[in-house]
Amino acid sequence: MRLRNNPKAYEIMEENADLVILKPEEHKGHYHDIFEINQPLYIEIGMGKGDFIYQNALKHPENNYIGIEKFPSVLAAAINKINKNQSLPNLKLMHFDAIELENVFENGEIDHLFLNFSDPWPKKRHAKRRLTSSAFLDVYHRLLKKDGVIEFKTDNRGLFEYSLVSFSQYGMTLKGVWLDLHASDFEGNVMTEYEKKFSSKGQVIYRVEAQF
Amino acid sequence: MRLRNNPKAYEIMEENADLVILKPEEHKGHYHDIFEINQPLYIEIGMGKGDFIYQNALKHPENNYIGIEKFPSVLAAAINKINKNQSLPNLKLMHFDAIELENVFENGEIDHLFLNFSDPWPKKRHAKRRLTSSAFLDVYHRLLKKDGVIEFKTDNRGLFEYSLVSFSQYGMTLKGVWLDLHASDFEGNVMTEYEKKFSSKGQVIYRVEAQF
Repeated sequence: MRLRNNPKAYEIMEENADLVILKPEEHKGHYHDIFEINQPLYIEIGMGKGDFIYQNALKHPENNYIGIEKFPSVLAAAINKINKNQSLPNLKLMHFDAIELENVFENGEIDHLFLNFSDPWPKKRHAKRRLTSSAFLDVYHRLLKKDGVIEFKTDNRGLFEYSLVSFSQYGMTLKGVWLDLHASDFEGNVMTEYEKKFSSKGQVIYRVEAQF
Repeated sequence: MRLRNNPKAYEIMEENADLVILKPEEHKGHYHDIFEINQPLYIEIGMGKGDFIYQNALKHPENNYIGIEKFPSVLAAAINKINKNQSLPNLKLMHFDAIELENVFENGEIDHLFLNFSDPWPKKRHAKRRLTSSAFLDVYHRLLKKDGVIEFKTDNRGLFEYSLVSFSQYGMTLKGVWLDLHASDFEGNVMTEYEKKFSSKGQVIYRVEAQF
């Protein structure tokens, strides 16, 4: 997700130090210290305006959540949106780029990973930039606990086809595949902003759970 | 595919002994003897009226093909259809049930396997009957050469979701996935009778190549 540049984005982050992890490198290996309770850590990479991770954190107080976003203006929008709601002790946000996450998380520190409506980078020469390419899977593989699971949703057919093959060729096992999530009997789906918008236009939503 | 029972089905098979392998158990381990040329062996399980395997055999004289069908009336329809065309030295048909194929093929005797528009058996309690369930994958795994490939097409979303997971959980690797085959840039697709009918109604066709 890209938004018009918000020149106050960094200012907004700093003003919300209770919600935003401003110096993530200082917490590497002990993120549980910044949450009230030491419990499983769920991460969303590319959280957009944060609806998905906020709703998850609200529904699951038994987990801790960190929403990661690389675009400062998008993170600022998420902060403003979350601040209109009830604050949650099990939710933090972070401004960081996925490929560099090993700088701020210890190996095996993350329990579960969400990727939702990632940039499809449709041109073949940009395939390595897709968040489900092998270079990113390498990072996730190291950061996730043993047998860690990735949950991935998209409306982009090409990205989903690519991702299924990428997961499989990486040696991951598909635990479940949904080729029309909203028409399925899947329960408890939490919709992202994009998902609400695209599915209301009749766009099929794809979903997969894959395990290392 | 089921057709109205044809009481002459077995008679039609016997009258076409040049096309139909009447006693397959006698050829176990040396199917190449029944073809003019000893070359890779491609199998289609559940060939229906045979359009797909006939067109493949026509396009690829460098391979041998055996179309397998468990319903005698369907096999008889395929025989009648093929007899209206040019006969092909690299195509044979066989009346047999997939789960028992180990009785008539030697381990590693098959190079490549096609499954097209198999019965979806939508009820969960019938999942084991699906041609992509682990019991069938066990059979294919033994009969196919090392690193053997299954090509699978269907218009049935539930069966396709199930099959992707089944292949993956069996330890197979997805080589390619197509979630709307006819809208993709996939070249050289040979359509089955079902595929022509369903896709003309706007039905999406799914395709996967999976390797043991």
